[in-house]
Order: sequence, then structure tokens, then C-alpha cells
Amino acid sequence: MTAQLLIDELRSRNQTISFCESLTAGLAAATLAEVPGASDVLVGGLVTYSAKLKTALADVPADLIEREGVVSAAVAREMARGARRVCGSDWAVALTGVAGPDDQDGMPAGTVWIGLAGPRWTASSQAAELLDSSVGRYALVPGHDVPVRVLAGERNEIRRLAVQAALEGALTGIREQN
Amino acid sequence: MTAQLLIDELRSRNQTISFCESLTAGLAAATLAEVPGASDVLVGGLVTYSAKLKTALADVPADLIEREGVVSAAVAREMARGARRVCGSDWAVALTGVAGPDDQDGMPAGTVWIGLAGPRWTASSQAAELLDSSVGRYALVPGHDVPVRVLAGERNEIRRLAVQAALEGALTGIREQN
Repeated sequence: MTAQLLIDELRSRNQTISFCESLTAGLAAATLAEVPGASDVLVGGLVTYSAKLKTALADVPADLIEREGVVSAAVAREMARGARRVCGSDWAVALTGVAGPDDQDGMPAGTVWIGLAGPRWTASSQAAELLDSSVGRYALVPGHDVPVRVLAGERNEIRRLAVQAALEGALTGIREQN
Repeated sequence: MTAQLLIDELRSRNQTISFCESLTAGLAAATLAEVPGASDVLVGGLVTYSAKLKTALADVPADLIEREGVVSAAVAREMARGARRVCGSDWAVALTGVAGPDDQDGMPAGTVWIGLAGPRWTASSQAAELLDSSVGRYALVPGHDVPVRVLAGERNEIRRLAVQAALEGALTGIREQN
């Protein structure tokens, strides 16, 4: 549903989109491609599952990953910026996070950052903030003094919610851009 | 199930895999990533939904695409070879085909080629040939004098079967390699 709305929005603007995916490993782009006619707006994307490929394919600086961690707002933004450039699309959406079941570098499962790069700006948000509050849970996340809302569920539910957050976030961000 | 077997096989060999996906747009890599611990063997991949990105990201020669068509054995092989190189993995799997609902360049929906590139060789097969005969249908495909078996079903069923064929084909090919 969101996929169809996103395609319609981009088609009406004559704009294209690409993805740079870590924890979802291609599921966001694949969800857009479920809709017939997706090829009007979807050019493709990068599946940067390993940290090394985030640098090799999407040009995310290795020292940024070292400093901020792969699951961070800054890396989500650089993934989006990189995919937009190498895929030559008007917009790019990035997803990086912890699917679980285990924590990763002290980050609890469900910590997911969404990046969005467009013609004029690049931004990032926590996935749980982009979705209805019923899907989250509160957890201690490094760098925050109080518990923050992260995605709740087992591994593949978190990945599915991350895709939903990415598509909804992209739709909102694109609609706000004149 | 096949995803788990493929991960186990690669892990036992201490080898890695990447993907280059067209009609499935990331669904094959995402299916592998459903399994916890996939990061031991999955490095990432390329979603080359547009023909242009097959050249820009996976180095598939533009004149080869022009001559053979994007849905061809030769392009599937070059997509796999390119992904293996740019992702730096031991193996790479490529998927290119017609998901439908419409034909594409005279190719009927369900025509899907799977490419597999490994340390010693690169090969390609028609997806329907990699699966149980019950899933196919016979159709006239350009370049063939008699009807050939292609994947049967609506758009997303064809994409799902293409992923299944790719993972099964990869598992068979990898197991045959000493």
C-alpha cells in the first residue's frame, strides 16, 4: 500500500529512487518491486550487509563507521547519499540497524536508522519514530541517557517494520519537498 | 530451508556470497538474510533493476545487453561475474527475467535466467530448469524453435520462484565444486 503510494508520488514528479540496505538486505527495494510498473521509478540499489561494502559500494567513510558505528544516524545519511550518487537517482533511502536476535555493539535488537537523501537535503530518523507508537518498545541505547523507542518483535518482524518505516519515511519526506 | 542449507554449506567452506538482482530487486539476498547468522557468509549485493545500473554497478558491457537483451544467459553470467568482483565474495548469484504481467521485448513473463559465478567458473541456467517440473509452463521464447519451460504464476509468484531457483541452483553448483 505504502509502496504503491510512493511509486505514484514519484511517478507524478517524474523522479526516481534507489536503496542502500543493511539489515533488510534488499527487502525494501524488493517490496517496491512488488508493484507492477515499479520500473518507472525504481532504478535499483545496494545491499551493503557487511560494513566493508558500505565503504566499497556506497562510499561511506571507514573512519565515520569506526567513530559512529554502523548503526547510527550519520552512517544512515552517508549510505543514502552514496546510493543516490552511485545509482544516479533523485532520491535514495538507507536502512541500517540491528535485526537481532542478539545485540550488536551494545545496540539492542530493533535499533534501526533510516536515511533519506534527496535533491536538496539528506536526513535520518529512528525507524520507530516513523511508525505508529504501537509497534515500538523502550530500550537503553548507547549514547542516550533515557530509554528510547526501538522496533519490537523477532528478527524478521523487525526487518519487516524497518521496511515499512523506510517507505513511510520516504513518502513523507518526498511529499514535503516542493 | 534452502537458505539455511546454503548458509550452512558456505559456512562449512568458510566462503562468502553476494547477489546481483534484476526482477527480484533484492528479494534473494533478503531471503538469505532471514536466517540468523547470515552475516557469516552474506556480504551484500547489487540491485540492478534498470539496464543502465547493470552496466554502472556490475560492469555488464552495454553492447552485450544491446546484442543479447537484458533477459539472457550471457547477461546473467556477466551480472554474477560483476557482483562477485565488486562485492569481493567467493560466489555470486544473478537473477534477470520477466516478472510480468506484461511481456518484455518479446519474452513471456516467467522467462528467468540465473547466473552463478564461483572461484573457478561462471554458468547460467533457466530458472524453470532448476526447479521441480510442476512449477513451469511451456511458452515460445525468442531464440528457441520449440516452446521452452518458463516459470508459471502471477508477478510475485514468478519473483518468489526465481529466488527459490537461484538459491537451489547456487546450492547445487557450490556443492559440486570441490
